[in-house]
Amino acid sequence: MRVLGVDPGLTRCGIGVVDSLPGRRAELVAVGVATSDPGTTPDLRLLRVAERLDAWFDEHVPDVVAVERVFAQHNHGTVMGTAQVAGLAMVAAARRGVPVALHTPSEVKAAVTGSGRAGKEQVQRMVASILRLDEPPRPADAADALALAITHLWRPAGALQGGDRHELTPAQRAWAAAEHDARSRSGYRTGVRERPPARRTR
Amino acid sequence: MRVLGVDPGLTRCGIGVVDSLPGRRAELVAVGVATSDPGTTPDLRLLRVAERLDAWFDEHVPDVVAVERVFAQHNHGTVMGTAQVAGLAMVAAARRGVPVALHTPSEVKAAVTGSGRAGKEQVQRMVASILRLDEPPRPADAADALALAITHLWRPAGALQGGDRHELTPAQRAWAAAEHDARSRSGYRTGVRERPPARRTR
Repeated sequence: MRVLGVDPGLTRCGIGVVDSLPGRRAELVAVGVATSDPGTTPDLRLLRVAERLDAWFDEHVPDVVAVERVFAQHNHGTVMGTAQVAGLAMVAAARRGVPVALHTPSEVKAAVTGSGRAGKEQVQRMVASILRLDEPPRPADAADALALAITHLWRPAGALQGGDRHELTPAQRAWAAAEHDARSRSGYRTGVRERPPARRTR
Repeated sequence: MRVLGVDPGLTRCGIGVVDSLPGRRAELVAVGVATSDPGTTPDLRLLRVAERLDAWFDEHVPDVVAVERVFAQHNHGTVMGTAQVAGLAMVAAARRGVPVALHTPSEVKAAVTGSGRAGKEQVQRMVASILRLDEPPRPADAADALALAITHLWRPAGALQGGDRHELTPAQRAWAAAEHDARSRSGYRTGVRERPPARRTR
């Protein structure tokens, strides 16, 4: 399975592609960032990022797209642009019939490090370790996109399907707790589909 | 000049098209809403609205697109979806080389009624009056989209170009004050271009 992770952002949008390997291993396919010039208008910035996302989707043909879930509670000046880029990634996936999964930062930390409260650097070091890289990818947005893709590959079935928590590993329990917390804060449904939808026409 | 106004929303996105006529008059071309089913996943909902926006753009070929500016301060459960739909409208415009203007609710109220604090019903009655309709378009999102389009047609040159405030009408002064307030709260630049950009390629 190939997962394309998106760490949304208007100035720097991290994009990382990871393939699953047998035995709970993962392989780096490609990683990078889509950037836009803060000196141009919002519409042109969004278009620029949308075009880069389209190019990544067309080149790497992911089976699933994992996007960071954006919360209105993160009330800084960039949240609107971040939400808009997340929306563009979701539409790019939906246009191609590719299912979308939304994961919170806490879920990513829990999946990659075993703790929903891990620091950003710890996550980045684990990404490098999991993908057998000499050092974490730079910039951080690129590493975060890979972490999102790994999170989706390693999501515990129990967390998504209400399975028996006693069978979960500590990392899976942390993940499930983080996901439960996110669900109770979000107006959205979970946004995970296991099968691609039928292609829609206008 | 033909303006397409977008009142963004994931469940109901208002879309209204207005042509300017000589003598500060305006004519209704078309009005409606793009809807999505709250029971489906966010990516499919966003795709549905994006496809409707594309269809409206292709059918009505606007000269300018006026989109309501969304603030993170409006911290209700739907703000993320609203911001994402606004982003889709901006990208749909940018893909076609159509300039985008962002207007705040206060600017719309000031432009249409002369007061930045007018109620929603007052705005809707004024929209009906300006466009010589027997009654305000329903639902309210449709009327709000028309109000956005009218706001762009009637925007005071002084508010955009730093002109002499003494020459402004009371409605124009209210509009300029609302715009000034919005600028000081927003991380975005104003987002108004007077000329279409060159078409970008990947």
